[in-house]
Amino acid sequence: MHINLKRLMEDIQVLSSFNETTGEGCTRFSYSEEDKKARNYIINEMNKIGLKVTVDPVGNIRGKLEGKNPNYPSIMSGSHIDTVFKGGKYDGVLGVVCALEVARVLVEHNIILKRPYEVIVFTEEEGSNFGYNLVGSKVLTGECNLEKIKDIKTKSGQSMYNKIKELELNPDNLDECVLKLSEVKGLVELHIEQGSVLDIENKTVGIVNGIVGLQWYEIEIKGKANHAGATPMPLRKDSMVASSQIISQLPSILKEKGDETTVATVGRILCKPNAINVIPESVKFTIDIRGMNPDVLKNVIDEISIRLKILEKEGFDCKINLLTKTKEVKLSDDILDIIEEEAKKEKISYKRMYSGSNHDSSIMAQVTDVAMIFVPSVEGRSHCPEEYTKDEDIKNGCRLLFKTIVELTKY
Amino acid sequence: MHINLKRLMEDIQVLSSFNETTGEGCTRFSYSEEDKKARNYIINEMNKIGLKVTVDPVGNIRGKLEGKNPNYPSIMSGSHIDTVFKGGKYDGVLGVVCALEVARVLVEHNIILKRPYEVIVFTEEEGSNFGYNLVGSKVLTGECNLEKIKDIKTKSGQSMYNKIKELELNPDNLDECVLKLSEVKGLVELHIEQGSVLDIENKTVGIVNGIVGLQWYEIEIKGKANHAGATPMPLRKDSMVASSQIISQLPSILKEKGDETTVATVGRILCKPNAINVIPESVKFTIDIRGMNPDVLKNVIDEISIRLKILEKEGFDCKINLLTKTKEVKLSDDILDIIEEEAKKEKISYKRMYSGSNHDSSIMAQVTDVAMIFVPSVEGRSHCPEEYTKDEDIKNGCRLLFKTIVELTKY
Repeated sequence: MHINLKRLMEDIQVLSSFNETTGEGCTRFSYSEEDKKARNYIINEMNKIGLKVTVDPVGNIRGKLEGKNPNYPSIMSGSHIDTVFKGGKYDGVLGVVCALEVARVLVEHNIILKRPYEVIVFTEEEGSNFGYNLVGSKVLTGECNLEKIKDIKTKSGQSMYNKIKELELNPDNLDECVLKLSEVKGLVELHIEQGSVLDIENKTVGIVNGIVGLQWYEIEIKGKANHAGATPMPLRKDSMVASSQIISQLPSILKEKGDETTVATVGRILCKPNAINVIPESVKFTIDIRGMNPDVLKNVIDEISIRLKILEKEGFDCKINLLTKTKEVKLSDDILDIIEEEAKKEKISYKRMYSGSNHDSSIMAQVTDVAMIFVPSVEGRSHCPEEYTKDEDIKNGCRLLFKTIVELTKY
Repeated sequence: MHINLKRLMEDIQVLSSFNETTGEGCTRFSYSEEDKKARNYIINEMNKIGLKVTVDPVGNIRGKLEGKNPNYPSIMSGSHIDTVFKGGKYDGVLGVVCALEVARVLVEHNIILKRPYEVIVFTEEEGSNFGYNLVGSKVLTGECNLEKIKDIKTKSGQSMYNKIKELELNPDNLDECVLKLSEVKGLVELHIEQGSVLDIENKTVGIVNGIVGLQWYEIEIKGKANHAGATPMPLRKDSMVASSQIISQLPSILKEKGDETTVATVGRILCKPNAINVIPESVKFTIDIRGMNPDVLKNVIDEISIRLKILEKEGFDCKINLLTKTKEVKLSDDILDIIEEEAKKEKISYKRMYSGSNHDSSIMAQVTDVAMIFVPSVEGRSHCPEEYTKDEDIKNGCRLLFKTIVELTKY
């Protein structure tokens, strides 16, 4: 019973050839011509091994391998095949082709499952073209409806609704997508880590306990614009110096108030007027803060707010605004324990860990039992042409997925 | 012997009406239609009181009041009438109209000077339209030549050479502008402070000992771009955090290594890729550092370099590049002492101080004895519509200028 790595790598290679930016990473936006080719490839591969293929009105592809009890809800595995602009070959794709490979091995070995196994391709995960992500899973759970699909537009003004129609699907029947309890028992998504923890710790897989909650804030610190030459240091209200105090203190605030899952990032900064010889009037910067424990996140933000209050006492005008917030997601202990058990049996080194980024699994976990398996990203690179996972790690990750699926479809 | 404040304010009012951005500050670029009107107004006012007016090939205006010894070199006073985009009414203009008012009072009271007094309007001080400043004074000292004048262009591609010709001047004779030793004995420039020191300390005038030297640096700190969610804090090389450490330490570095004239400003910052959910790969920021003592400036930069070295040991890639450098200028102790003496006699409160910004005086000090008198800028505002100096301060500043000119032209 062997995973066929050559076949798996062939899948990755073929899918990466459906690419709008050849030579500069991989770009395959949902509902594009390239996406259409990738869809056809997957559907064709599903048909080859006799899976029952359906494409729902939003474009989610499901390939079903029947079990002994066709009325039992399915165990699913899959991910997505759309990419960011100039992204890599592995993000999403790897979860799809590994799920497909699992089906192939099951078919090849005539393994009879108790319940159905489904390979699923979630549509439009990245949100690269429409600025709204996780669409396929959100439609499956009922979180995204027809009105929203009509509302979402590309930068050039094309609605998702129309783009879907170009695929000869009928988005007007969107309600049909929503999963019924009788359809799904659980989901296991294999994905690249997108961080460097597994690579650095030299582990073959990550078993993902949960997906951290995310909060985005924008902080604005207003001081006083003044002539850089004519204003002595003690007379300044320098919003750049004040902002840099807050930013430089972030790591120590996290050390004090955070837990091992908490991270905070200032990724964007805008200074006004941003002229060499003017003391900045105001500085705006964002904080992306994530973690499993909402109380811990609150403590961190409270501490930042205290430091802003101190700046206000010094005469600065400070604002902190929440831009967006998603709740943390705990994954299914039952499935995670099975994965861990199988990893031990197979002597695959692993680390129990958390995901710092969102996946279709975050959405699906609202309605069913979900677990994730991470494989290492070399140097943590992702969403870029340098994205890479070693063949050996892919093979072992897929083997663990196979063992897990067999175990989950036994009952 | 009285300064006529009403007349002085009328001058300011009329000049500010020659404005391309009415309602949004004052915009009067050199060699524009508005500048032409302002020039004609000044020349007309000079003619009214019998000054001998000359306009040199680059557009510097000089109005000469002869003294008993016409062959003696002149004492000059003046400033400029061009403005920044949407600037104020006082920057430059005040020094011109006060010098003019001094001439009027001298004429009205038939005061016979030993040596000539000249009101001077330096052309193109701000560099707003051509990106090259202090042109009038640089031509007078020979620092700027015909080739340069042909080279300097507006953003729309018009050369200064052609713009000057539109004023019916002949820039081909530029060499004629260069001042001879026999022409000038000294210059006193009255100017708004452009900082808030006099306003805060409630002093009527500043007596300017010198103009600080300026150095502009660009620092680049390269870390590693990574996913903001998937990268635990200890695994980060966050160039934003590293940069903010340097920026937040600047005030304490200056306290330790600087003197009372040293200031440092981070006015511009650029972060790459500047996305909310990406740990920045690199951050570039500028440091504008100024002070009277070049050794002190060197010590400050050395200390910053030491901190950058520490970051390099932590794995960051750091660069510091000098963008531009101008030397400090010491003004004439002889004239400054006379100004101080006169301020005491006139019971005008004053502060001996330094100028943090450059003026035509910086250039003129290379060839003759120069001093500056500052009047307060309310709240330190300048180069903006809010620029304001109180009438009373203008009157007292002009009175002190008058007394100083009388004293300087006695011998």
